[in-house]
Amino acid sequence: MIRVGIAGYGNLGRGVESAITQNDDMELKAVFTRRDPAALKIAAQGVPVVSLADAEQWKDRLDVVIICGGSATDLPAMTPALAKHFNVVDSFDTHANIPLHYANVKKAAGDAGHTAVISAGWDPGLFSIARIYATAALPVGENYTFWGPGVSQGHSDAVRRIEGVADARQYTLPVPEAVERVRAGENPALSVREKHTRLVYVVAKEGADRARIENEIKTMPNYFDEYDTTVNFITAEEMKRDHSGLPHGGSVIRSGSTALGDRHTVEFSLSLQSNPQFTAGVLAACARAAVRMNSRGETGCFTMADIRPADLLNMTGEDIRAHMI
Amino acid sequence: MIRVGIAGYGNLGRGVESAITQNDDMELKAVFTRRDPAALKIAAQGVPVVSLADAEQWKDRLDVVIICGGSATDLPAMTPALAKHFNVVDSFDTHANIPLHYANVKKAAGDAGHTAVISAGWDPGLFSIARIYATAALPVGENYTFWGPGVSQGHSDAVRRIEGVADARQYTLPVPEAVERVRAGENPALSVREKHTRLVYVVAKEGADRARIENEIKTMPNYFDEYDTTVNFITAEEMKRDHSGLPHGGSVIRSGSTALGDRHTVEFSLSLQSNPQFTAGVLAACARAAVRMNSRGETGCFTMADIRPADLLNMTGEDIRAHMI
Repeated sequence: MIRVGIAGYGNLGRGVESAITQNDDMELKAVFTRRDPAALKIAAQGVPVVSLADAEQWKDRLDVVIICGGSATDLPAMTPALAKHFNVVDSFDTHANIPLHYANVKKAAGDAGHTAVISAGWDPGLFSIARIYATAALPVGENYTFWGPGVSQGHSDAVRRIEGVADARQYTLPVPEAVERVRAGENPALSVREKHTRLVYVVAKEGADRARIENEIKTMPNYFDEYDTTVNFITAEEMKRDHSGLPHGGSVIRSGSTALGDRHTVEFSLSLQSNPQFTAGVLAACARAAVRMNSRGETGCFTMADIRPADLLNMTGEDIRAHMI
Repeated sequence: MIRVGIAGYGNLGRGVESAITQNDDMELKAVFTRRDPAALKIAAQGVPVVSLADAEQWKDRLDVVIICGGSATDLPAMTPALAKHFNVVDSFDTHANIPLHYANVKKAAGDAGHTAVISAGWDPGLFSIARIYATAALPVGENYTFWGPGVSQGHSDAVRRIEGVADARQYTLPVPEAVERVRAGENPALSVREKHTRLVYVVAKEGADRARIENEIKTMPNYFDEYDTTVNFITAEEMKRDHSGLPHGGSVIRSGSTALGDRHTVEFSLSLQSNPQFTAGVLAACARAAVRMNSRGETGCFTMADIRPADLLNMTGEDIRAHMI
């Protein structure tokens, strides 16, 4: 049995807790939190909740820790710190900072003889892998990534910070015509605006100026100003009833030509009712791979690009060859 | 530069020859054939054509040999024989015999300190990998594989062996309603007949009994009797004009639930204008991986399940982390 710890108990941490119940070779042994452990109720029965400050005391009792923190400030500190004591997996998803995060984690994990898998999940993660396989098979071509339909938590949070907004939910939507052109092999040049639209549901505070809120959303730099954005004001009841889930998904599509001129399209798509629940399943699989890699002496920092697919699966090589190949 | 040999110069061998031109780190050094080398004209300029019987003489001049033979009789003999002298890649695709082929190749390659990758391509190959990733991420669910629309060469050959048939082309077609039910997450139980239909174009010899030919096709055990099959008789000119390509493709779809009841669908799809040209691109990428694995001392027999995605790509780890993850 792979003895797993979870560090951080938000949506993703709860997702990992439930993912472990679907993996027969894993058991949850501890949940680490920065909150008061006595005040944190978790779903798993009989699993200790421990202060993150005391994590080191568990270093001989866990095979791997899955770190479920945010990429902005949590993971850059937590992953190198925990990699000193454990094999670790995180879902660091600030694409531009992956090289720096990799270097920091590599040093910590490498020095300690541990195995760290960073940037696991679906993007980065399964989508990265899809880009790699498609590019390897079809070196001359173009990769496109479409996100959604799905809830972007970062964009939802950005809208919630606007004065007069009580609650908000932002859906990212791929533009169907753009997806169809890519699927048809046109290899179009697409602007940011041509690839995705944004749809925002807002619960306004009483007396708030809705026109101002809508304008602030639509002109917000980086988040919304380059997109066609629709803003709908709804009630708190409607928000709760219709928008309490965290669905997401998207597609990686590569279209290109082989040397004699034949055209080919490779597509990998996800449709997810719960982004954190699915992401957690990928993290659990990567935790298994991290433990196996560590047992073979493969220490340091890795992404899913460095993981043999077979290491993700709770099956023997024989069974994989007989049933999955 | 990776020095590549090709063994076998049919559709797939020609595909590998053209795939190498799209991979800047590879050069074609020799083509091995069982035919008379003097009589075989190849497209590549200045590349020697060598009798397969003399392949061993090239053992210090090649980094890897891509074996482009048929799975029924060629590869079971050729791959273990060539693995004694070279790192090798093949596309062995008789799913039921993969464990036996693996054992034979493992012994030959392992004893010689070589690295062999078997069953590369898209199914087995990329589709196998898609099944593995989807199953690892979503352990509770069901995998479905749909093939086509595309030409099945095995079924086309089977029809050509019927008396009175001058030429034939068989298209495998997924049943759209079945694909939609799977995509919608219904996890339906589907019979062979409910998943695919077969469409056959036949050029009959003069005076042949078309009703008998059609009946022999539709009742042919294993190949057609479990399917709804449509037979169209056409002229030799129509065959040449409309059916000279070898398009193929298909989808691997996994649909399942995480532990709190959320449903998710993972799909990997290919749409290929030329099956052998695309398959060859996958084999070339696996040849790169075989050479890298061998240089690290990873000898023996492997499938794509055992290859780190990064090893397939002509990019450094730094570039992969900066641009692909």
